[in-house]
Amino acid sequence: VGVIGAGQLARMMAEAASAMGIELVVLATSVDDGACATASRTVVGQPDDVASLENLAAAVDVITLDHELVDLSLLGELAKSIPVYPSPTAVRFASHKDHQRRAMVAAGVAVPRHLIVDVIDPAAVRAFCESCDGVVVKAATGGYDGRGVAVAHNVVDAMALIVEFNARGPVVVEERLELLGEFAALIVTDTEGHHERWPLVRTIQRDGMCAETQFPAGLDTATELAAMELADLVASVVNAVGVLAVELFLTSRGWLLNEVATRPHNSGHWTIEGATTSQFENHLRAVAGLPLGATTTVASAVAMVNVVGHQPGDLTAALAVPGVHVHDYGKAYRAGRKLGHVTVVGDDLEGARVRAWKGAEALGTFPKETS
Amino acid sequence: VGVIGAGQLARMMAEAASAMGIELVVLATSVDDGACATASRTVVGQPDDVASLENLAAAVDVITLDHELVDLSLLGELAKSIPVYPSPTAVRFASHKDHQRRAMVAAGVAVPRHLIVDVIDPAAVRAFCESCDGVVVKAATGGYDGRGVAVAHNVVDAMALIVEFNARGPVVVEERLELLGEFAALIVTDTEGHHERWPLVRTIQRDGMCAETQFPAGLDTATELAAMELADLVASVVNAVGVLAVELFLTSRGWLLNEVATRPHNSGHWTIEGATTSQFENHLRAVAGLPLGATTTVASAVAMVNVVGHQPGDLTAALAVPGVHVHDYGKAYRAGRKLGHVTVVGDDLEGARVRAWKGAEALGTFPKETS
Repeated sequence: VGVIGAGQLARMMAEAASAMGIELVVLATSVDDGACATASRTVVGQPDDVASLENLAAAVDVITLDHELVDLSLLGELAKSIPVYPSPTAVRFASHKDHQRRAMVAAGVAVPRHLIVDVIDPAAVRAFCESCDGVVVKAATGGYDGRGVAVAHNVVDAMALIVEFNARGPVVVEERLELLGEFAALIVTDTEGHHERWPLVRTIQRDGMCAETQFPAGLDTATELAAMELADLVASVVNAVGVLAVELFLTSRGWLLNEVATRPHNSGHWTIEGATTSQFENHLRAVAGLPLGATTTVASAVAMVNVVGHQPGDLTAALAVPGVHVHDYGKAYRAGRKLGHVTVVGDDLEGARVRAWKGAEALGTFPKETS
Repeated sequence: VGVIGAGQLARMMAEAASAMGIELVVLATSVDDGACATASRTVVGQPDDVASLENLAAAVDVITLDHELVDLSLLGELAKSIPVYPSPTAVRFASHKDHQRRAMVAAGVAVPRHLIVDVIDPAAVRAFCESCDGVVVKAATGGYDGRGVAVAHNVVDAMALIVEFNARGPVVVEERLELLGEFAALIVTDTEGHHERWPLVRTIQRDGMCAETQFPAGLDTATELAAMELADLVASVVNAVGVLAVELFLTSRGWLLNEVATRPHNSGHWTIEGATTSQFENHLRAVAGLPLGATTTVASAVAMVNVVGHQPGDLTAALAVPGVHVHDYGKAYRAGRKLGHVTVVGDDLEGARVRAWKGAEALGTFPKETS
C-alpha cells in the first residue's frame, strides 16, 4: 500500500501495517518525516509532482492518503492506472469546503447557514453578515488545524478576511453558532461498500485544533442515533473507500454537519487502544481489499488528549502516569505543533481524562486547568 | 535503543518503539530480516562479530537482544562501553542450560531431576537413565523451538543422543515427566530493580514449539500464587533488566522450573492486545530507563495461537474471523516455520480459542482438530 504523505497518520498506519504484514510505502517530502522511520519504504517527492506520484505508484498495488492537500486532477490521472482510495471524487468533499457545502445541501444534509464567495459581491456579503450574530470565514481549500479559519464579529472585519482568503480561492462564510458541543462520527467503508461505525465521540477544541476526545460522548440514545443517521447520509454522499470522519455540531436546532475528512482522523486516535480494530488498521484493510474488523469498544471509557508543543516534554513523567499510552509522532519540537497524543482506557471517563491530561501535560501540552 | 537480532521480537519491539517515539536500530544479518521494514534503522552484520556489534553500539545509547544466540564474552566486552540489558550474566541463564540448572539448584529452585554431562561418564549416564521412566536430552546451548531437544525411552537411545549433542558442548539429561500442564510467568524489571508481573498463562506445545497460550491459566489461586513465588525466586537469581519469561512445569510433585528467556517471549505475545502494557513496550521502557507500564489485563480471556507454516495462508480469510488480531512477522513461507501469531480477546476463553485457531488455520497453521 502506498501513502501520499508521511506524517503521523501514515506513521500510525505503518504500525498497523507492520502487524498485518502489509508493506507500506510512503511518499515523503523529506526522509525526516515522521512515518519514514516506521514505514517499509520511503519514496521522496512532492504530492503535487507527477513524477513523484508515478514513482510511488510503481512501487505499490493501491494508493491512499495521509492528508488532503493534493492536486485532485493529478490524483484523477493517477487513478486511471492504479486504484486510489479514497477516490479523487470523495477527497474533493474534504479538500474543497465549497463543494462539500453545495453537495450536502443538495443531498438534504443539515449544515450551518452559509454563503459561498467565489467572486466577492459586497452587497451579498453585507446582507449575510447582518443576518448573523458574527460569522466564521473559511478558506475553501488548503486549511487545516485552524489555519484558514477566522471569526469576525462585524461586517468590516468579515469583509477584510474574505478579501484576504479570496485571493487564494473560494471562501465559505458561515453563521457563528452557539454550540451545545462538537462531536465526531467515524465510519469505514470497504471496496464492496460494506461499512462499520465506531461509536460517536465528543471533541474538545482549543485554538482551532482538536485538543481532546471523549468516549462515551455523554448523549442520550435518541440524540446519538440522530447523529449516526446524519453521518450515514454524509457517508453515502461522499462515497469514500477507507475511513471517513464526520465532524458534527450539536446546536439548539439539532445536528449540523461541520467538516469531513476522507482518511483516519485525530478524532479517531482513541480507537488504537479503545476499540477492537483501530481506524488505522481498518483504513488499511479497506483500501487493501481485506475484510473490515470489529469497531466495538474494549472499555467503558476512553480519553485521548493531543500533545501540542508548549514546552519540551518529559517522556519519563508521562509514562509514570498509570495507564497512559503515549503516541509520539517523531516530530521535532516546535511551540504550537501537534507532536503526539496520549490515550487512557478506563472504567470511568473522568478518571481517564485526568490521567490523559496529566500524561499530555508531561509531554508538553499547555495545562488543561489554565486554558 | 539497539537490538542484536532482527526477527519477530525486534519487529514487535519496533512497533512499540514507533508509538513511544523511541528510535530502534536493529543488527540484522540481512536487510530482508523481519524487523528491518519497521525499525528506524538497520545495521547489517553478525551477532558474533566484534565490528558489527561496535557499529550497532556507535548508533545507540543502550543495547538489548532479540535472541540469546550471542557470544557472551563479546557481549561482556561490549558492556564495558555501553549499557547492555539484559546483562551478559543474566543472558547466560537463558543461553546455557547447564549454568541455569546449577545456579537454580544452588538457589533452592525446584527443577526436574537431571544430569549435566560435560565429559561423558557412561556409568553415570546409565545409572541416571535407569532411575527414570525415559529421559529428555537437551543441548545446553544453541537450541530453540524444539531444536537441540529429544526424548529417549531407553539407555541406548539416550547415549546416542548424548554423544551427538556432546560433540557441540555440554548436555543436560532430564527425567521425562508426567506433566499436569505447562505454564509461563512473565516479569519485567527496570534498571532500578522495580518489577511488574503479567498474570500466568497456560502454554500448549506442539512439536516442541509453543502452539497456543491461554489466559486465564485455569488454576486455583493457591497454585497460581505458588507459581508466582517460584517465578519471583527465579527472577531474583537471574537478575535481568527487561522482560524475563519463566517456563514452568506443573507436576504431581508441584511446580518445577523448565527454562528461562531474558527477553520478550512467545508466551507473552498475548499481552499486545490483552494487557494494558505489552511485553514489547515494557521491555523497551525497562532497557531505556523509563517507568514500567501496568501489566493488568484488559479482558477476561485472551487466546494466542501461533501461525506455523503448514500451507500458504489466506489473510482475507483470517481477518474475516471476528476479533482476530493478526501479527505477521514478514517472513517468507516455509513449512514448519513460525510465521506469525493470532490473538483474540474476549469474554470467555473457549470462544476466544475457537476464533484464534480459526484465524491461525486460515493463515496456514495445521488444524487444531487433527493435531
